Amino acid sequence: MEIRVYKRIQEANDAIAARNRAAFAAAGTTAFNLISSSGAGKTTLLIATLERLRTRCGCGVIEGDVETDRDAQRLAHLGLPVVQITTDGACHLDANMIATVLPEFPLAATPLLFIENVGNLVCPASYDLGERGKIVLLSVAEGDDKPAKYPAALIEATAVVLTKTDLLPHCPFSTDRFWADVATVNPRVQRFALSATTGDGLDGWCDWLAAQAR
Amino acid sequence: MEIRVYKRIQEANDAIAARNRAAFAAAGTTAFNLISSSGAGKTTLLIATLERLRTRCGCGVIEGDVETDRDAQRLAHLGLPVVQITTDGACHLDANMIATVLPEFPLAATPLLFIENVGNLVCPASYDLGERGKIVLLSVAEGDDKPAKYPAALIEATAVVLTKTDLLPHCPFSTDRFWADVATVNPRVQRFALSATTGDGLDGWCDWLAAQAR
Repeated sequence: MEIRVYKRIQEANDAIAARNRAAFAAAGTTAFNLISSSGAGKTTLLIATLERLRTRCGCGVIEGDVETDRDAQRLAHLGLPVVQITTDGACHLDANMIATVLPEFPLAATPLLFIENVGNLVCPASYDLGERGKIVLLSVAEGDDKPAKYPAALIEATAVVLTKTDLLPHCPFSTDRFWADVATVNPRVQRFALSATTGDGLDGWCDWLAAQAR
Repeated sequence: MEIRVYKRIQEANDAIAARNRAAFAAAGTTAFNLISSSGAGKTTLLIATLERLRTRCGCGVIEGDVETDRDAQRLAHLGLPVVQITTDGACHLDANMIATVLPEFPLAATPLLFIENVGNLVCPASYDLGERGKIVLLSVAEGDDKPAKYPAALIEATAVVLTKTDLLPHCPFSTDRFWADVATVNPRVQRFALSATTGDGLDGWCDWLAAQAR
């Protein structure tokens, strides 16, 4: 019984995701779904990225959070279209939440749309939002064993970003082990290692994003 | 419809949790449910804690993970009863998973039982396992804004542990802001700040745990 209901929820989600995808395609918008645990640095990376990218192409942000609009407030100074979705306890964004806020976006003037999902490495992986690709963030502070322990998001990801590389001298972390496990789970995924704090690695990451939005 | 089914799932979970709670009470076992995002340091703290506590009282561990038995392997050298639950994608432990593995534990010889939940700060908060209390871990690397952004787990917590305090010099983190937000969400919660790497703060934490298991 529960399984039938879950399947119906998933089918309803996928139908709305398909409509979102069509809307993005019609407007020429490349949408990325950013997925990570809480505290991996999604918002901090977004700010550093948008400071570099906003003069190169039109960018927009959908912020997903369980509670508070603090992340949207952190982005406010950039002067970009930002919409906050507060899920009121729900552990992931779904396609209908995205469809509900899309009319607030000037999609035709937004070649690059970032959707920052709820901080949760497990549940968001199961919900298609209509995005071009999922980008998974894992921070150095979380430990090098996470690609093997949380493969669901990684298996479907377009890109994986190792964040907070400035903490490498202070954390027990083998980058060899990390990337070997990433390659085992998803051999074709695009890989980035960077620090939004020092700026290390941001140029390659931003060039790749800009190319996706061409 | 979906809401009715969810309510039935929750009621079924709570009934099994009540049975687990009765089994713990009958055996004199204090069970704690450890909840955090992936990479906040649950397993590392457990190892450092058990190395100190195992000579003071009988301890056992139930390890919950989406995939792999790496955490149980990390605990194997301690020579304690450890059971691994691999949820195969599910985003939280539920009471029935705990009930299923309880017969494998010598509960009467286990005054202190740690249940390490799946790395996820959102969903595990909704599922009673029959524990005495929930212990929420938040790491310095996650940022000082997490108590306000993820209040659900914290509201019901018996204790909150700020982990990885050795990273304080390397991360933008206001301990004042962190503890003020913790106090707003849950004024009565027990508070600890520690580093499993340096050992700082572990004595007070272990003394508190030992007192809970009296």
